[in-house]
Amino acid sequence: MRILLTNDDGVYAPGLRALRKELLRLGEVTVVAPATEQSAVGHSITLLNPLLIQEIADENGKAMGWAVEGRPADCVKLALMELLPEKPDLIISGLNAGSNAGINVLYSGTVAAAIEGAFYQHTSIAISLEYTKPKLDFARAAAIARQVVEQMLSLGLPPGSLFNVNIPSLDKGPIKGIRTVPQNLVPYEERFDRRVDPRGRVYFWTSSRLHCPDPHPDSDVTALAEGYITVTPLQFNLTHRGVLERISHWKWEF
Amino acid sequence: MRILLTNDDGVYAPGLRALRKELLRLGEVTVVAPATEQSAVGHSITLLNPLLIQEIADENGKAMGWAVEGRPADCVKLALMELLPEKPDLIISGLNAGSNAGINVLYSGTVAAAIEGAFYQHTSIAISLEYTKPKLDFARAAAIARQVVEQMLSLGLPPGSLFNVNIPSLDKGPIKGIRTVPQNLVPYEERFDRRVDPRGRVYFWTSSRLHCPDPHPDSDVTALAEGYITVTPLQFNLTHRGVLERISHWKWEF
Repeated sequence: MRILLTNDDGVYAPGLRALRKELLRLGEVTVVAPATEQSAVGHSITLLNPLLIQEIADENGKAMGWAVEGRPADCVKLALMELLPEKPDLIISGLNAGSNAGINVLYSGTVAAAIEGAFYQHTSIAISLEYTKPKLDFARAAAIARQVVEQMLSLGLPPGSLFNVNIPSLDKGPIKGIRTVPQNLVPYEERFDRRVDPRGRVYFWTSSRLHCPDPHPDSDVTALAEGYITVTPLQFNLTHRGVLERISHWKWEF
Repeated sequence: MRILLTNDDGVYAPGLRALRKELLRLGEVTVVAPATEQSAVGHSITLLNPLLIQEIADENGKAMGWAVEGRPADCVKLALMELLPEKPDLIISGLNAGSNAGINVLYSGTVAAAIEGAFYQHTSIAISLEYTKPKLDFARAAAIARQVVEQMLSLGLPPGSLFNVNIPSLDKGPIKGIRTVPQNLVPYEERFDRRVDPRGRVYFWTSSRLHCPDPHPDSDVTALAEGYITVTPLQFNLTHRGVLERISHWKWEF
């Protein structure tokens, strides 16, 4: 099996390195990932700047792929169109340092990379590890991620399948199991910290406290908080079918 | 009516200025838009940098709102949580220089700003003008956009309604009418131009030719190409309900 591995934390992120080690047990792994951290870039792509690439080696000097001076979605495009000699059987994005659940799924570069893979009919899985303290146990989480991926593959996914997987922080105690859940759509409480710089200019910091006041009880946010690994099948059709049908009879004047 | 106006081309973009003039006929307009161009940033948000703001005036010296050193989605968040004294009745994002149809909807900062508004239950409309040559007739397109918005408002949208509107290039001849259509999901043909810099480093330029080889006949991409204004109702629930139901019985092992 040929696996394309990417992320949004950058090619030197420990989460990617740990996941690569585990995925090598499943097949050939090529890394095409951003040269620098790209958290919360969503589905950005690079139109006006050159995408510089650099071949990279692992800690044993073995070629492992390319670093790209671009966004996660750029990496997937470039891998599929230019860098990989053969199409991958599977695209994995992660292991992200921090969960990507609920509304955050839309801000996530990790998930956007997986969506980009699914555009081109490749089965793509985004995998994130809940963040509770600076030192995350990526090695253990990557082994868990690999087991989840193996089970997903054994169930015979059609090409272009797209999943978002979150692993609860391993500091919260034993993982309770795996749950298949929808994305929570209740927005996070947003706080900004207003400050004034030495030149009198006003600026705001986004608060670091992500708090979803009242998440849906059967959702990724809730299940993850309860200590479950969450698996959410995703799609990228943004058309609101209900409204489309309701307004198809509108008499527009023009 | 209180209108929040934003975009992804930046606060000095002629499309925003032209649209503001038209929207002033409908009510009070406050601009909160990026200080610089933010095309194709998708649903990026700023977590690690300060969001500097600056009050801005229009060409007559009249206060018109704020420029934010951030992304389109940051502008909407900051407007709703900090800058606007009262909640807006309507959020408009545009008038974008270049269409946002098909898969491009996911890369678009213009659309992401509207989605951000809809997260918080504000009716939000992204409006884009197809690009065919450098000099676009924003004044005429903005008048058309305003007429479309007026009709949408007269039809009594529930709060949190979300729409993506595209106006065909006015150079293609008279507009044929308005069509309510779904988002095209066929990916664009991607081309990269490989080059080597004077230091021997390899880089790629994304091709500027956006070509969707075989768009769905009943879609935004097709209707826009045929010369219609397209109206696409959007939603931001990425859960794939069909797959979710199909795999809810999976016996996960953990």
